[in-house]
Amino acid sequence: MADKRPLILVINDDGITAPGIRNLIDVMVQLGDVVVVAPDGPQSGMGHAITINATLRADAIKINDGPQKEFSVSGTPVDCVKLAVNVILDKKPDMIVSGINHGSNSSINVIYSGTMSAAVEGALEGIPSIGFSLCDYSWDADFNPAKPYIKQIAAEVLAKGLPDGCCLNVNIPHPAQAPYKGVKVCRQARANWEEEFDARKDPRGRNYYWLTGKFVNFDNGQDTDEWALANNYISMVPVTIDFTAHHAIQSLNQLNFESK
Amino acid sequence: MADKRPLILVINDDGITAPGIRNLIDVMVQLGDVVVVAPDGPQSGMGHAITINATLRADAIKINDGPQKEFSVSGTPVDCVKLAVNVILDKKPDMIVSGINHGSNSSINVIYSGTMSAAVEGALEGIPSIGFSLCDYSWDADFNPAKPYIKQIAAEVLAKGLPDGCCLNVNIPHPAQAPYKGVKVCRQARANWEEEFDARKDPRGRNYYWLTGKFVNFDNGQDTDEWALANNYISMVPVTIDFTAHHAIQSLNQLNFESK
Repeated sequence: MADKRPLILVINDDGITAPGIRNLIDVMVQLGDVVVVAPDGPQSGMGHAITINATLRADAIKINDGPQKEFSVSGTPVDCVKLAVNVILDKKPDMIVSGINHGSNSSINVIYSGTMSAAVEGALEGIPSIGFSLCDYSWDADFNPAKPYIKQIAAEVLAKGLPDGCCLNVNIPHPAQAPYKGVKVCRQARANWEEEFDARKDPRGRNYYWLTGKFVNFDNGQDTDEWALANNYISMVPVTIDFTAHHAIQSLNQLNFESK
Repeated sequence: MADKRPLILVINDDGITAPGIRNLIDVMVQLGDVVVVAPDGPQSGMGHAITINATLRADAIKINDGPQKEFSVSGTPVDCVKLAVNVILDKKPDMIVSGINHGSNSSINVIYSGTMSAAVEGALEGIPSIGFSLCDYSWDADFNPAKPYIKQIAAEVLAKGLPDGCCLNVNIPHPAQAPYKGVKVCRQARANWEEEFDARKDPRGRNYYWLTGKFVNFDNGQDTDEWALANNYISMVPVTIDFTAHHAIQSLNQLNFESK
């Protein structure tokens, strides 16, 4: 059937009850049949972690009304993709969307992000996959200005597919900056986190630490996601599944690695 | 002091007591002053996870004799790098080595690997970083055939540094295949895991799952890490910290992502 509705898998890392995924479901049910397979609690910062030393649960659940089916998973976002594709869904989804993340996943944040790891795992499975993030960490963020863009990006990817070997990292400026200027395809800015551990003593006098830090952008290029976001564009970075630093191969071949 | 010994940070994901890291320490104390900052238990499959919703511990410990200093950390391999660089060490290390992992981290395993995530985090900090993995999952694997190569690779990297924006993913064939033919600089093979979840019922009749699967290599290229390992070479893949799929930018610019 040429007019059959596409099957869309919806995932996130903030947990299945987060407002971000609720807003993403609202948009996706307009485009296809939606199955939600999302963590039962917050999984931010989990990167591409998978659960190999513990068991997984996947329970049917319904968080709010709508045509979507929903499953709550006890594992990481990447576990959700693997369980959805291999256990829960009867057929391969036509698209995976992850998010909407509460907070930016621009630049190097892609590597720590559970939202983006779900999209990368989708790309590894050969499924067109997109991670959406809103640059507003608050739980009651306004996702409305982002929604028309999310709908158009998802519709275009459903219609045209994605280039081989990548997924999309889409970041949307803070809603206070809306209306946005449009969507800009970018490269990942070269940036880093400068950690500032908060060292404390527990009631027994032993040290413990909280990870904190500040984001530092070293890259002023106008072709970067950081530039786009700072200039009120929605940034779209294609993220690779080939992690080879091809530029380094030639110079490594000039070193001597043979044992003596 | 031109002849000052380099400072080498040693990390792993199998936990601070694993034979793999003990063997890596044996080699590194021949090359410099060694500080070990490693997880207090197994962290395999943790990818680039960081601990943001819980506290971290870092306790001085001594697992076995030798000149190295050792710290046991309650978090992930990436937490270990961040704590080492920002809290534990007085100065930036000259090199980070991670491993020796019990089991392969070739090809797409790089993305799930805590061993390699520690090396990638090192590269993000601008520190020459190498992950070493032995293609033998057993706890009592023989690391001896690998050690001369590990020593030479580490010595060469200490002497010459690494190209900008990458770390090294070094995989060593199963020790039964020794002697090895040498070291081969490679690209990451295009491969994947085909998951086969083991579905079970708990004593109360509820479903649960164990993640299992088999590795499938789609890539016959003789320039890949899988080819090198199958042909008894030690594989060395430079791993990027720029995750942009640059090849995809042009075709994405031809799509229509503007909201209607």
